[in-house]
This record gives sequence, C-alpha cells and structure tokens, in this order.
Amino acid sequence: MTHHVVIVGAGFGGLGAAHGLAGADVKITIVDQRNHHLFQPLLYQVGTASLATSEIAWPIRHLMRKRKEVTTLLGAVSAVDTERRRVSLDDGGSLEYDTLVLATGARHAYFGHDEWEPYAPGLKTLEDATAIRRRILLSLERAERESDPERRAALMTFVIVGGGPTGVELAGAIAELTNQNLPPEFRHIDTRKARVVLIEAGARVLPAFTEDLSAYAKRSLERLGIEVHLGRPVRECSAEGVVYGDQRLAAKVILWAAGVRASAAAAWAGLPADQAGRAKVEADLTAPGHPEIFVIGDTATINAWQGKPVPGIAPAAKQQGTHVARTIRARLDGDFAPRIFRYVHSGNLATIGKSAAVIDFGWIKMRGGLAWWIWGLAHIYFLIGVRNRLAVALNWLWIHTTGSRNACLITQGNVGDRHTDSS
Amino acid sequence: MTHHVVIVGAGFGGLGAAHGLAGADVKITIVDQRNHHLFQPLLYQVGTASLATSEIAWPIRHLMRKRKEVTTLLGAVSAVDTERRRVSLDDGGSLEYDTLVLATGARHAYFGHDEWEPYAPGLKTLEDATAIRRRILLSLERAERESDPERRAALMTFVIVGGGPTGVELAGAIAELTNQNLPPEFRHIDTRKARVVLIEAGARVLPAFTEDLSAYAKRSLERLGIEVHLGRPVRECSAEGVVYGDQRLAAKVILWAAGVRASAAAAWAGLPADQAGRAKVEADLTAPGHPEIFVIGDTATINAWQGKPVPGIAPAAKQQGTHVARTIRARLDGDFAPRIFRYVHSGNLATIGKSAAVIDFGWIKMRGGLAWWIWGLAHIYFLIGVRNRLAVALNWLWIHTTGSRNACLITQGNVGDRHTDSS
Repeated sequence: MTHHVVIVGAGFGGLGAAHGLAGADVKITIVDQRNHHLFQPLLYQVGTASLATSEIAWPIRHLMRKRKEVTTLLGAVSAVDTERRRVSLDDGGSLEYDTLVLATGARHAYFGHDEWEPYAPGLKTLEDATAIRRRILLSLERAERESDPERRAALMTFVIVGGGPTGVELAGAIAELTNQNLPPEFRHIDTRKARVVLIEAGARVLPAFTEDLSAYAKRSLERLGIEVHLGRPVRECSAEGVVYGDQRLAAKVILWAAGVRASAAAAWAGLPADQAGRAKVEADLTAPGHPEIFVIGDTATINAWQGKPVPGIAPAAKQQGTHVARTIRARLDGDFAPRIFRYVHSGNLATIGKSAAVIDFGWIKMRGGLAWWIWGLAHIYFLIGVRNRLAVALNWLWIHTTGSRNACLITQGNVGDRHTDSS
Repeated sequence: MTHHVVIVGAGFGGLGAAHGLAGADVKITIVDQRNHHLFQPLLYQVGTASLATSEIAWPIRHLMRKRKEVTTLLGAVSAVDTERRRVSLDDGGSLEYDTLVLATGARHAYFGHDEWEPYAPGLKTLEDATAIRRRILLSLERAERESDPERRAALMTFVIVGGGPTGVELAGAIAELTNQNLPPEFRHIDTRKARVVLIEAGARVLPAFTEDLSAYAKRSLERLGIEVHLGRPVRECSAEGVVYGDQRLAAKVILWAAGVRASAAAAWAGLPADQAGRAKVEADLTAPGHPEIFVIGDTATINAWQGKPVPGIAPAAKQQGTHVARTIRARLDGDFAPRIFRYVHSGNLATIGKSAAVIDFGWIKMRGGLAWWIWGLAHIYFLIGVRNRLAVALNWLWIHTTGSRNACLITQGNVGDRHTDSS
C-alpha cells in the first residue's frame, strides 16, 4: 500500500507540505473546510475594497490539478482517532492515514469576550473580508442618509482594535479610502471627516518591530489622520461603540485585529495545548508520542526561533510545511531519526497606507516610500499563480496612479453565518 | 428651485437617463436597492466561474462621482404618492420629485410556482450568480465524496429550465466547465460524465432568432454534449429534481431561466399593468395621466418596435433612458409636446460556449466562430469603464488560450437571503 498522507488545511503550511512532497512515493489527501487557498496577508485589501476576492484566493483543486496523487476534499474534520489513525469528517465519512499533517490555522479571539464578535468582526476568511467591506461601505451609505449629527458621527467613526500589522494595515487602508477615494462620491457627507481610531492595549504599535520603526509607523498613521490610542485595552464592544480605558466612543464600525486563537486541531487529537489552543509540538514538529502526526503553522506552538516562539506568519508556516515534507521523504527512505526544525526569520514587513511601510530584515531596517515598494514586490512575489500576481500588480499600479478603487461592491449576506474555524 | 429628477433603479435604463441629462439644469437623485450597476448580459459568466463579481459590476456612486448634481442613495422604494409627487423609502424617509423615472427592472418568475424558487434559483443579481456558482461547484464537491452511484449521478446532473439566451448561455458555459476545465481537478468522479440538460417548453431554443439560427444553436449545444428537450414544460421542481412532460429526472442542480416578472414599480404608483406586472405606458413612455412619471426598461411594456413589444434587453432599456432624458431637456426648454419613443433594434446575439455564437442583425445573420468574436467584442465594447473592459478582455483571452478558469471560488451564505426585486 502506498503511504497515505492526510493534510488537514490548505493554508501556507498545508500547501507547503503538499508542494514539498511532489514526486515522492505517497498518496496525499488534502481536506479543507473551504474550497480555496487564501493569501491572508492581503486580506485587509479585500476588506477595504482595493482587491477583489478572486485576486487573493485560488481553488485548492485547481492548484493541485497536475498532481494526480493528490485528492482534494471539501469537508470539515470533527475528530482524530490517533489509535486507529483515522480522521472523522462532519458528514460521517472518515479517512485513514499513515501520516497526518494538521495545519488548520487560527481564528481571531476575543480574550473570553466572544459576545463582542457580532459588533467587532475579525479578518481571517474571504467571508470576513466581504462582511467587513460591506460594514464599512454600508455605514457610509447610512451616514449619507442620516440627518441627526450625532448618529451621523457614529456612522462615520471606524475603530480598529489591535495595533499589530493587521490593525495598522486596516487603519491605513480605511483612512485612504475615506480621505482619498470616496470624497467625490458622496454629496451630504464629507468622508474626509470620518474618524479612524486605532486602539492598542500595549505601549506601541507593531510591537514585533524595533521601537524606532514603531514610532515611525505611529507618525505615519497620524499623518493619515488616524487617531492612535496606546496603553488602553478595550473593555467593551457593543452596537453603540467601544469602551477603552475610561473612554467611551460611539462607533458603528468596530474591527477586531487584537488576538487569535488556534483552531481545534489539538482538541481533535487530544494533544497538549497552550492557552491560545495551540498544540505543543516536539522539536521535529510532531505531536508528543505520535511521530506520525505533525502539527504546524498557527495551530501549533514551538520555540524554534533561537529559543523564542516561531511567529504566526506565512513564511513560518511555509517553512514548517517544507520541513514536514522533508521528514516524510527521509522516513520513506528508511531514515527515522528526528529532524529538528529551525525557523529562519527573513523579516517583518508592514505597510501604512500606500506610500509608507516599515521593513525589518534584521541586517537592514527600512521605512518610507522605498520600503513600500519592497513590501509590494515581496507580496506579489509570494502570491501563487503568475496570472494573479500580474492582476494584483496591475491593480495596485492602477490604484496608485489613478487613485480609483475597483472593488467597492456591497454584496449581501454573510455577516453572522460564518463557520467557526477554517480547517 | 432646480427641477428635481428622481431615478429609481440604476440599470441600463436608469443610467441611460442619468447620462442623457449630463449638463442639463436639473438636480438628480438616483435610488437603488444595491450599491452597484450590474452588466447583466454577462452575469451567467459569474455564475459559471469565468468572471469575478467585480468585473461586471460598478458602484453607482463611483460612476457618478464627477456629476456633482447627482446624489446617489442606497435604499428601497416602498411607495409612490403620485398626487404629492413623493417617493417613500423603506427606512421612513421620502423624496419629492418634479420628474420621476421608474427603471427598476425585473426578477425571474415561476409562473405561479414561487415554491420552486429554493430548488431552481434564477439569475438576476450578483448574489444570484454567486449562489448559482456555489450550487454548481458544491454539487461536484459532494459528488467527489459520494459513493452511491445513483446519488452521485443526481449530483452530477445540471438542469437548465428555459431555452432563451440566458438558458442557452448557462448550459453552454456549464458544459465547458465540466468538459474542459474541471476534469483534471477531480479524482473520484469524471466531470465529463456530468449531464447538462436544457428543457424548453416551446418548439425551439432562442425563439427570438430565425428558425435556421435556432437549429444551429441546438446543434451547437448538442455538440457540447448538452441534452436539449423541446416542447415539454416543467411541471415540478423539488430537492429531488424536475418533472417535465411525463419524464422525471433526478438532479441536484436546477437553474431557472424561463420567465421574468417586472418589479413592483407599477404597483407602487398604482399604474395599469400587464400580466407580468409591467406598467403599460404611453407612446412617450409616461404613465397614463402622469406626464411627470416615466416607466422604462423591463418594468414597462410598450409596442414601440414597429407595433411589436420592445424586447427586454439592455440596448432597449438604454434607448428608453436616453429618450426620457431628451424629453426632460425639451420640457426644460418649454417644449411640452409628447415625444413618441421608437425602438431601433440593433440585433440579437447569443453565445453557445466559447467558440460558437449566433447573431441576427437583421441585415446580416451569422453563426460560428467569427460570430463568437463579434459577440465578445460587442459585449466588451458596451461594458462601462475602460479598466474593466480591459480586465474582462484579458480574462477571456486567458481562458481562451489556457483553458483555465479564474473564479471557481465557493463563498458562503447568500442562498435564500435575497431581497425580492432589485429597485
């Protein structure tokens, strides 16, 4: 029997493993709750109407169409029987594996306040992004029809909770939308008067960067008219707005970029996990006591970066997927020695609007316009598929030169009917 | 006071009127239930995963951004008070008009069998298109996981009800999807064995064309492997499939392209209407007894095509919008004489897959590959906005040369949460 590898989750980790196994003597089944791989680093641009959904997502089957040994299944995992080596699917079906790769990612988390989710949606899936886009644009539509100044101000106040890269990028993109793109389109409101407020509990934005770059990012945000409030955690989110520190702010759009929680992979397989639900894995990325189970990406935690935890970013998941593939290949050749994973950090990037960015490659730190172009090129380079790379590049060039946006479409539904986590 | 024109509906008719009034001494308010103008003739390509939603839809505000005298409102009309010249909106607001243009289009209709809608969705809005795409792709996903041959066959049977241009174009696109694009992507099913069945109650497909072109279209459909059943009306649609004539066919995907019903515009204004709900208008497109109300496009009916009814196609709505604008301009100049609308038919076009099409311009009839290119060029030409025109052209060229599809994304929600008609 051919060795059967079941990969749950077709994000950067899962696809990294699948790609690394090309040509190996294995049979592969990829299971995902969605039919597409998503380029999450650009998801905020879908949420803010710069990119269309199809520009950052690709059907998994299509990506794997030439890999005849790879079967793709649309389905959600409900349990893993580690004794019988069997994955149960929600429709009652099951899959037996020789090797299991759990790469099911994370969702946003509310630090024990799940009741905030309806008022402060996060950004992890295509549906999240179209729901956020819908929320932003509908709020301005309502403001255009609102005569009461107080209600109108609340409709034109956008709060972003969380000062990491996602929060900073969302805030920058919304400010540019309201400052530059939308003003000519409204008659009763001046969208330049919209307030964009970034709230971060910690002492600075972009805490993964140096203090110098954090300070630059804050100045860049403020130059775009964004109010940055540091050191005050959000204590309440509701339909009326937010409470942070001792401040109360009326806002009809609140976006959550403050925390993540791992998918249920550790629970399925009964693995030890940390507080955020991430499976604690061995140095070779296997589950304790189960060398045939790998857990990678945002759903695992491991101190493989010079003793520090590996960050939850796309290149890290990709490296882990590649490492898993190498380990499986070695085992097929009879080499069962544990292969220790060591994370190689290539850098941190974040963009603030369309002319500023911060880059920390370790050996070089950059900020400003040139950093923005490097940020753009790096993202285009890592996008899968030549055509989409070209389409995204053309789109950016278009927005950059004309200032017009492509994707301000409001489509219906979605808010509130999400599934729980994306496997 | 500046003359206030309220245009309800931003389809081809409503935008035709708005464009025709450029530079006139009027104030214009455009009200639409959606925030975008939709290029409906290409909607079937969104439904069959060739085009992305953003490639055939444009925010109305964006189209009108340079027209400072035009206000765009997102809202649904609930009533028209023709005495007080006032339009009521669903949020309790209202708009007073000097001239009212009702251009709210049509929805698909089920000939008194509205209970069929959940099983046989139609194709009129972006949400319809993404719901249909989701239904087609999910059915194949389920077939890939289904072991029972009978259930699998039902999941791989696609029924299209109605042999007009929409039905023919949908059938052709689905057949190409299953025959050409998807076969390399599945492992357990052979998508080339999917059945595409077109059911038409009348004696031939494309009844608006000559018999010769209808026969050619039927042969072209059959060459793509599509089963064409004529002269048998559908008697039942359910979760199990369809009953047509005395045949019962198990099918999990049924698409409705058989009939339309006008929006409620005639009812709002208490105007006389035909059986399909279309307002009966005067020769100058005004409502009887109300020269200040125009009703145009699919929500009106008028025998202005050499004594025959004007067809429900985009160019006809556009011509009517332009005619309304000319009439309003003449009235502003003091000329209140009725201006009779005469429809100029430029032709009928329909495409069958990506290499055949039929064209009837009256003076010339064409079919085959060249007709397909003319069809494509005509549609690209009529698309609004240079950039999207280019994007659609590039997309088609890409599909044509590589056979790969861009937009096979399944996104969640939408089915069942549609609004009733698109105002």
